[in-house]
Amino acid sequence: MATAAASDLQTHCSTIAQRAHEASRELAGLDTATKNAWLLASADALVAGSPSILAANKLDIEAAPSYGLSDAQVDRLVLNDQRIAGIATALREIAALPDPCGEIIEGQTRPNGLQMEKVRVPLGVVFFIYESRPNVTADAAAICVKSGNAVILRGGKEAAHSSQAIVEILQQTAATHGVPAGAVQLVDTPDRDAVGYFLKMDQWIDVAIPRGGEGLIRRVASEAAMPVIKHFDGNCHVYVDADADLEMAVNITENAKCHRMGVCNACESLLVHQAVAEQFLPLVAERLKSRGVELRGDQRACAITPMTPASEEDFGAEFLGPVISVAVVDDLQQAIDHIDKYGSHHTDAIVTKDLKAARTFTAAVDSAAVIVNASTRFNDGGEFGLGAEIGISTDKFHARGPCGLRELTTYKYVVYGDGHIRG
Amino acid sequence: MATAAASDLQTHCSTIAQRAHEASRELAGLDTATKNAWLLASADALVAGSPSILAANKLDIEAAPSYGLSDAQVDRLVLNDQRIAGIATALREIAALPDPCGEIIEGQTRPNGLQMEKVRVPLGVVFFIYESRPNVTADAAAICVKSGNAVILRGGKEAAHSSQAIVEILQQTAATHGVPAGAVQLVDTPDRDAVGYFLKMDQWIDVAIPRGGEGLIRRVASEAAMPVIKHFDGNCHVYVDADADLEMAVNITENAKCHRMGVCNACESLLVHQAVAEQFLPLVAERLKSRGVELRGDQRACAITPMTPASEEDFGAEFLGPVISVAVVDDLQQAIDHIDKYGSHHTDAIVTKDLKAARTFTAAVDSAAVIVNASTRFNDGGEFGLGAEIGISTDKFHARGPCGLRELTTYKYVVYGDGHIRG
Repeated sequence: MATAAASDLQTHCSTIAQRAHEASRELAGLDTATKNAWLLASADALVAGSPSILAANKLDIEAAPSYGLSDAQVDRLVLNDQRIAGIATALREIAALPDPCGEIIEGQTRPNGLQMEKVRVPLGVVFFIYESRPNVTADAAAICVKSGNAVILRGGKEAAHSSQAIVEILQQTAATHGVPAGAVQLVDTPDRDAVGYFLKMDQWIDVAIPRGGEGLIRRVASEAAMPVIKHFDGNCHVYVDADADLEMAVNITENAKCHRMGVCNACESLLVHQAVAEQFLPLVAERLKSRGVELRGDQRACAITPMTPASEEDFGAEFLGPVISVAVVDDLQQAIDHIDKYGSHHTDAIVTKDLKAARTFTAAVDSAAVIVNASTRFNDGGEFGLGAEIGISTDKFHARGPCGLRELTTYKYVVYGDGHIRG
Repeated sequence: MATAAASDLQTHCSTIAQRAHEASRELAGLDTATKNAWLLASADALVAGSPSILAANKLDIEAAPSYGLSDAQVDRLVLNDQRIAGIATALREIAALPDPCGEIIEGQTRPNGLQMEKVRVPLGVVFFIYESRPNVTADAAAICVKSGNAVILRGGKEAAHSSQAIVEILQQTAATHGVPAGAVQLVDTPDRDAVGYFLKMDQWIDVAIPRGGEGLIRRVASEAAMPVIKHFDGNCHVYVDADADLEMAVNITENAKCHRMGVCNACESLLVHQAVAEQFLPLVAERLKSRGVELRGDQRACAITPMTPASEEDFGAEFLGPVISVAVVDDLQQAIDHIDKYGSHHTDAIVTKDLKAARTFTAAVDSAAVIVNASTRFNDGGEFGLGAEIGISTDKFHARGPCGLRELTTYKYVVYGDGHIRG
């Protein structure tokens, strides 16, 4: 019977994936006005439907202890009128963003008179696997549909009732606003095998986006037959150059480390040019210690200011908490080499007044964002003006850094001739 | 001892990959003039080095029977002065192409004064696995280096000596023209395990590009830890609409099918609107039969013109030879649905005078190239004006269709502030 059940589950997943593919074909041709009308109607309907969403959310909150959720995790699960209003606002903001689909990226008339356009089109079907926050359900659905994609949502079981209530409302407004029924679907089984089945259905699903712990992302990346937009760790650096404004450097280091410690664009490692190390390290150590941050330094750093000796592992670590590794470097090139060796190509900053150093650093450091005289915390879709984002890619391929509407698209060549044949 | 040998091979592959990574860091900052000077010098050096290349090529030709190569395969292996001149010309053409690196794709100043640019940069290291044609060795090296990437070349063993001779010359000119030593490396062992080792080294290799049979591509796609640019089959369609110029339709079908039968953008399936089927099918059957092409039709097509009854498989097949499947469809929508069901999203064409039909077809058919009133054979980097291409992607992700210099790049965000911190 186990085999029959497995086969049932696989069939169920196939049905969802095929339905998403069919919907994606319709969505690709849907005009912007229709998509926006659905988003605005959904925002209103979510607010109007608050009682049913809150009732569903209550079931999730009640079940939370049985999942062993921490208080912080329960807090992220809780909905109230204010948070539902926030979800609605996010949908209205996505409606206000430009539609990426149909953009003619470039075009030309060839010498033989053939006219060609490179046109932006949706990827097709997005399989989105995410943590247990109900607001993400609405957000991801909105971003995918606005960019012309159908989405299969696989949320955490801890938010299952809330997500179900939200998706039901999105589907009701879809039915009355010309958005295909399969555009937004929630996987309605907690069975972990379902994820494995979907990851093999590359004939219907065009991209998988896992958002959660490293284990989940590695599992998805290794099992998926389709491309995966991955979001791994950020071991971000601040390098203080010989010619830095040291007060600015202290402020940037503090902000990059302490503004939010648990995020991927927080600074995890501080590199200091030897010429300013003696002056700078005591200043930054005092500031960071006043914020409760432990410094772990290499030999040279420890010789200047008392701090814990750093291990080799510390320089490769993403602490996501009140620890920072510190190293003194001979020069700019050694800083660049250190970042190449230990960094994760996410976000790295230089503090300097020297134009040549800034230009060398930004050219040589191969990270999604390379920042001069500003905090690493600015590598963010909102701060970059991308509008809503479905994740931040640590890949170089297809999408790098914040993934907004445009990063969920591809292109096709549209060619017009007058009976052209190749000679 | 087998384990020791395996470990030796793995270490050898690591050394190559790390060397490529180091070279890629240097290449990313190399100016266009240096890259072009190397390309032009290499073109001259290949011509000047013809005797050594031809001597090496002779060894490959002599060994060809032991590999069981067909006459056509041996012909593709043979070099002579004219072919070496062709290789040199290709390098000079790549030198003349614009450098994609450093392009500022877009940029803005944020309301807070932070200035950001999205800058085109190389992917890093390309692992290129290809068939046994010596000219591809030079071509791929040139395309990769011009786009700022280091390349690890894994050519077919049948062309090992020729490729070695070519790469030696490219490396000599690199040494005298400021191109890093690890920019172009040839894998110097025929051991198939080497490919497996490289495919796991995603810490040094950024993309794998297999060019060859479907088996090779599937192996690479399933084993690779890094992204893969895949080139699967092309089951390309020509759809003859109710409102088509039938003589144009016959010419386009003939050209799409017969111009070169063994290529991915050749037409494999013909769809005909029922309104013109009775008039069109006898015309196109006569033309195709005169070119030695076998028609395999659905029931309606067979009822109009004598042809072999088609099986379900025929409609999904990439024949790469003198066979074409033929179906009569009720209308445009049925043609679009047929292409979605049986096609490979490569290249599909419509022949029509009806503007609305052309617009509907180009919007609804999800293929790398969608063509109106021209042969499917035009989906080609050269015909599209992309210059040199390293392959044709059948993926939607990152690169779709012909892959030229730009498709071997990614981007990074470069951000300038004045001490900005997030509040």
